[in-house]
Amino acid sequence: MATPAAQRSIGIALLGCGVVGGGVVKILTEQREMLRCRTNLSFDLRHIVVRNPGKRLAANMPTPFSTDAAAAIDDPAVNVVIELIGGTDLAGQYVERALRLGKPVITANKSLLSQRGAELFAMARKHNTCIGFEASCGGGVPIINALRMGLAGNRIDALVGIVNGTCNVILTRMSRNRWAYDRALAEAQRQGYAEADPMMDVSGRDTAQKLAILSSLAFNVRVREEDIHIEGIDHLQMADIEFAGELGYVVKLLAIAERARGKDRAANDSLFLRVHPTLIHRDDVLADVSEAFNAISVYGHAVGHTLFYGRGAGAMPTASAVVADLIGLGLGSLPLEFSQLRIFPDTTEPANVVPFEELQTRYYLRLMAKDEPGVLAQVTAALGTQGISLSAILQRENSAGQCVPVVITTHLAREGAMQAAIKQIDALPTIQAPSVCLRIIETPREFAEG
Amino acid sequence: MATPAAQRSIGIALLGCGVVGGGVVKILTEQREMLRCRTNLSFDLRHIVVRNPGKRLAANMPTPFSTDAAAAIDDPAVNVVIELIGGTDLAGQYVERALRLGKPVITANKSLLSQRGAELFAMARKHNTCIGFEASCGGGVPIINALRMGLAGNRIDALVGIVNGTCNVILTRMSRNRWAYDRALAEAQRQGYAEADPMMDVSGRDTAQKLAILSSLAFNVRVREEDIHIEGIDHLQMADIEFAGELGYVVKLLAIAERARGKDRAANDSLFLRVHPTLIHRDDVLADVSEAFNAISVYGHAVGHTLFYGRGAGAMPTASAVVADLIGLGLGSLPLEFSQLRIFPDTTEPANVVPFEELQTRYYLRLMAKDEPGVLAQVTAALGTQGISLSAILQRENSAGQCVPVVITTHLAREGAMQAAIKQIDALPTIQAPSVCLRIIETPREFAEG
Repeated sequence: MATPAAQRSIGIALLGCGVVGGGVVKILTEQREMLRCRTNLSFDLRHIVVRNPGKRLAANMPTPFSTDAAAAIDDPAVNVVIELIGGTDLAGQYVERALRLGKPVITANKSLLSQRGAELFAMARKHNTCIGFEASCGGGVPIINALRMGLAGNRIDALVGIVNGTCNVILTRMSRNRWAYDRALAEAQRQGYAEADPMMDVSGRDTAQKLAILSSLAFNVRVREEDIHIEGIDHLQMADIEFAGELGYVVKLLAIAERARGKDRAANDSLFLRVHPTLIHRDDVLADVSEAFNAISVYGHAVGHTLFYGRGAGAMPTASAVVADLIGLGLGSLPLEFSQLRIFPDTTEPANVVPFEELQTRYYLRLMAKDEPGVLAQVTAALGTQGISLSAILQRENSAGQCVPVVITTHLAREGAMQAAIKQIDALPTIQAPSVCLRIIETPREFAEG
Repeated sequence: MATPAAQRSIGIALLGCGVVGGGVVKILTEQREMLRCRTNLSFDLRHIVVRNPGKRLAANMPTPFSTDAAAAIDDPAVNVVIELIGGTDLAGQYVERALRLGKPVITANKSLLSQRGAELFAMARKHNTCIGFEASCGGGVPIINALRMGLAGNRIDALVGIVNGTCNVILTRMSRNRWAYDRALAEAQRQGYAEADPMMDVSGRDTAQKLAILSSLAFNVRVREEDIHIEGIDHLQMADIEFAGELGYVVKLLAIAERARGKDRAANDSLFLRVHPTLIHRDDVLADVSEAFNAISVYGHAVGHTLFYGRGAGAMPTASAVVADLIGLGLGSLPLEFSQLRIFPDTTEPANVVPFEELQTRYYLRLMAKDEPGVLAQVTAALGTQGISLSAILQRENSAGQCVPVVITTHLAREGAMQAAIKQIDALPTIQAPSVCLRIIETPREFAEG
């Protein structure tokens, strides 16, 4: 290590200057002096590439806007390419172009990484460069850095996260304001938390893409979006959020990756991977994560339970993560870690995924039952046949001979058995199908001991 | 960046093999293969230096135990020295010896760093080496890494943390079990959470030493323990925890560093630094941090509110942090960051600390008042004279003519004014001095906006 050399310039091409891009420009412009003091680096925006060249930022900014991404990437004065275009086609082409020139890429693009991560990481490695993707998950929460380095001495046993701010805002409104899903979604759209086409978020796909990235790092295997069982929040009904509340639970869209605990080594290395609305006990620290905040619980064999909390989206928080990667690149530590650590999906084996039917969890069931004698006996018989035992039942008095909700929670049961039981229950003439089935998470057991 | 070279050996001298040292040995031994796979590094314990050479670990471990720290440090096969002796004298000598040989040091020693950090960091720099100290604060929570890199694009506005597990265990028992301080302490000692001489913890000094380290990094200034106003939990009474609970607050020992918000630049760069039992609203996420857990809230200008949560002490969590630094050293990223970042106390200016009397905060007061007419008028007059306005009053009906507790909360007031008011109140013949004065924290305002 030598005395810090004279200030170096990091020439940047910023592709895309929407919400997050604008935040990056703001930090690099307004905090230029602070960053220079801290890092002895000068972060210089050489090109800002946008689709619409007429666009200008409010900030007083001399950097020329252009529409020519290729020219910006190729400019010899550019050392780093920040990709904030989104989508996979154009963004993928530009990322490839930069990597082939040996230029490091910083991206927030979870779609691109979850789809083509292994290929792009390999390309970066081949051209002696690297990819920074702190901004792809958890907004400003430095969870990628924590998994890469801070917790690197741990065998990770589980990762449970709220990683989609849009869904969390909607669920917070449903749970606190007792708004129906449609109203909560419309309000989230009005406030800019949800996009005009909200499907990527509410279907759970965005959450699954982030889980693919996070669990790949945490478990040192290659996880693809297709490996993950995905259920969104778009069919969630107010009634179930209310019943869950009565039972002491909060409903959250969770991304869950857990190491299967088998006796043999192979089983130990396989993973349960899932995204679905989940009942979480109100005493669990994740239950308090509301509005647009994200939080990721990581359970390490040595560190025990850790949790990382912060704003999961938005201009400035995500830009904070982009700038963290810029600093790591500028200092040279990020490339060193990238080139040596064998935790990235191009250097690891495909995940050994446990089929979803094998999941063992607790369940919440809501049946709409005709108020006739013997219904409950039929239902419990269907569950009993599958070896599923009940934990609690909640049934209201009937008013006026309509169907009444019967809410059941179970002890641990196999997913396959539960699906078989529901099929049988929904075929009963006394039940108005489809019944609602949600999963209850037991907070992963902590192995760390003082 | 080249293709990963053949596996390199990192030769380690471990000084001290108590609780944390044992954890380090356990991870390096049991997770040897996992660490090798991840990092392509072989972490080899060359020496374990203990005071009592008869001591042996349960683990099957070939490393020789010795009592000769100097010989272990000097061994050419040793690339890294891990100092887990504690204290400042011997530990300081060994750290110096290693640094002078150009060998990096990893330490969990907050006393040493808060007392001699600037000097030792400078020494490391002079000899082209570095110090890793992730384990010095927050146990296994990678908060040092987050402040060093993950949040490096932020101007930090505030840092508020629960960083002493012992105190948090005691406060949890007082608050949940309604045990008096002495009983809660005795139980914490019995369980191994508190030491035989608990003063370092319960006096708040350990918390202050950690705050010195964390705030130095967060605000890029040099903070010493003496810069911090310190009050411990050892005089805390059950009654105040109960009244606080009635008012919707939980009492926690908080480490607080806040940037003073002035109009001129100098004022903006000055800090409030304090450690004291604090009333925190029960809805605040820190209020839920119980038992031996730690949590640190960091407020960045871009990222907004982030929180880092986990076990703040214990063998394995702290060892997890030591191993994280080992990996950073082995990969070379930690030395690169250490040599270039100008955030360590040897490269920054002394903190500009706002005198404690200038603090503006809300207060909780408990007075023991004789049940006579006019007492409350005298008390409110004393507060009024100092410009302090009341937010709430709680007074119980008297039973049998004794002194009755009068609990008052205030709006924002100056510390100096409050101390003057209390002096006046305690001099009243109708008041049984000393009155109890605790501070209420308002969760720092978040500047980040989506």
